[in-house]
Amino acid sequence: MQNAIKVAVDAMGGDHAPGEIVKGAQAAVKIRKDIHVFLVGKKDAIEKELSKYSYPKDQISIVHAEETIEMAEPPVLAIRKKKQSSIVLGMNMVKQKEADAFVSAGSSGAILVGGQVIVGRIKGIERPPLAPLIPTKKGVSLLVDCGANVDARPSHLVQFAKMGSVYMEHVVGISNPKVAIVNIGAEEEKGNALVKETFPLLKECQDINFTGSIEAREIPYGKADVIVCEAFTGNVILKLYEGLSSTLLGVVKKGLMSSLRSKMGAVLIKPALKETLKSFDASVYGGAPLLGLNGLVVKIHGSSKATEAKNAIIQCVTFKEQKINEKIKENIISASKEEEQEGKNGV
Amino acid sequence: MQNAIKVAVDAMGGDHAPGEIVKGAQAAVKIRKDIHVFLVGKKDAIEKELSKYSYPKDQISIVHAEETIEMAEPPVLAIRKKKQSSIVLGMNMVKQKEADAFVSAGSSGAILVGGQVIVGRIKGIERPPLAPLIPTKKGVSLLVDCGANVDARPSHLVQFAKMGSVYMEHVVGISNPKVAIVNIGAEEEKGNALVKETFPLLKECQDINFTGSIEAREIPYGKADVIVCEAFTGNVILKLYEGLSSTLLGVVKKGLMSSLRSKMGAVLIKPALKETLKSFDASVYGGAPLLGLNGLVVKIHGSSKATEAKNAIIQCVTFKEQKINEKIKENIISASKEEEQEGKNGV
Repeated sequence: MQNAIKVAVDAMGGDHAPGEIVKGAQAAVKIRKDIHVFLVGKKDAIEKELSKYSYPKDQISIVHAEETIEMAEPPVLAIRKKKQSSIVLGMNMVKQKEADAFVSAGSSGAILVGGQVIVGRIKGIERPPLAPLIPTKKGVSLLVDCGANVDARPSHLVQFAKMGSVYMEHVVGISNPKVAIVNIGAEEEKGNALVKETFPLLKECQDINFTGSIEAREIPYGKADVIVCEAFTGNVILKLYEGLSSTLLGVVKKGLMSSLRSKMGAVLIKPALKETLKSFDASVYGGAPLLGLNGLVVKIHGSSKATEAKNAIIQCVTFKEQKINEKIKENIISASKEEEQEGKNGV
Repeated sequence: MQNAIKVAVDAMGGDHAPGEIVKGAQAAVKIRKDIHVFLVGKKDAIEKELSKYSYPKDQISIVHAEETIEMAEPPVLAIRKKKQSSIVLGMNMVKQKEADAFVSAGSSGAILVGGQVIVGRIKGIERPPLAPLIPTKKGVSLLVDCGANVDARPSHLVQFAKMGSVYMEHVVGISNPKVAIVNIGAEEEKGNALVKETFPLLKECQDINFTGSIEAREIPYGKADVIVCEAFTGNVILKLYEGLSSTLLGVVKKGLMSSLRSKMGAVLIKPALKETLKSFDASVYGGAPLLGLNGLVVKIHGSSKATEAKNAIIQCVTFKEQKINEKIKENIISASKEEEQEGKNGV
């Protein structure tokens, strides 16, 4: 297919690579005719996994990568030294426009560093944030930034808010998404130095629907669509989401197994409970894009299985079709003008 | 009783005051002969509530307070102007040693400010942190700091770690409590500037059992007993705990009500589930002390009911009996010596 979206996939990254990643890739091309997947990694290992499935052969190619970047390797060094690794080769494909997107469950650090130094930032973007979707009572919210830039500055957070708005509006399909900044109280005078400085800048933005502060308590209720914070806070929120959900469900399960009566009840409630808990399962929402790069880089969880890989690959289509990067560029150009104006107003 | 612990209680603070607070106070003195409660607030309102119960009259006194500090009032101004408010009067009782402790469900800001300016810090303590116990799979952990000091410095965090250790060891009864710093990865080189500066200082501390970084994911598993962070992060953790627990349980309940079959199951599992979820209910652990003050100030949640008030009042006994403040003083003296040593070593 001439106009297929070309997605390079790191076949070697993550706890369940290459098996689950390859499985997800073949599942994705079965669903979408308009995707071509390049599986980047050890040729033999990938071929062995692919041989287990029947799938449209013309939609998957293998790009051999001799090396693999391990989880524990120092990211900057790994990206510099391992030129033949699946991450470096996959990122280079995006840089050279041989691929529209790169999806990896590998080392977060290496993906963040590679995204910046190989794929490169869109001109005007100060820092590319990692922006996962998190489940809420109402649907999903975009948490931006979530691991790429600790100790960010107010101007970074303003860009995060704008890029996040574009993403939620055009990829997730929420019109006029509500943007809020993570804070420790609802009042404008609350917060740490970063939040206090950023708040008035967000208020001035004409091109986003800024609704003020959001307390962490309100995040799971879905009070905002785009949740802005610096990466340390974002990482704490994302990880606590994971840890607390699994702990609480563990506590519930333990309760269900504690007596004969409750065991009988558990059998009755199982199908209904499974269905509703699915809505709170982060894996169905695909991966987290690194926003603001000259190409799409999507990070999926290290523990990702075939479903996550498949969803992340399919998500790349919307990103490309909706021309998100073009929209971010437009947005940044208008933002710079606005900031000049703000400068004149003494803000 | 001559040696009773004297606890001043803010009868006017919180969403359910004075009714639930008074109910909690009379419940506390029924359980413990060695507590005397001073209910601070509007005399008429308190008397009316007290008249509903039969309790040992000699264990409760009323201290009339003409004013009340509202939740939305700017804290510094409120503490300065409302000299006849329940918070200011209660704190003054602690300062004047007329009470050993003050418990309030009122404005967090006013309690934090009042604690510092009225009760005052122990000499050598730079900032008094708010330290709630949070439920985990294994029991409870102390989250310190959780709302008192945003933009803290490394030396503050070191003191938080030490005071938290004393509290967990002597009030909660965990010997040699594990101390960890909230971080975005397990490796020592990870983190924001604050964490990177604080990490080596904690490693140098001889008097605590520092175990390194803790990712937010691991907090609900109970990986550490004392969880150290600055207040912005702590507030995010505490509030997300609240929000996510209630959202997830809401999702589970909704699932249970979705079909006739699951409704029948729900009836069977209810008692067992209720019992296990109790272990994850923060209200049973009493309030959050402001550590490092010249007296005990305990903040309980604004939505606290009688159980929380009762538990927080009873918790004051252990604090006093274990001479926590004396132990913090000892700890700080040895800490200062150690820091001098660290200075010499160029750390």
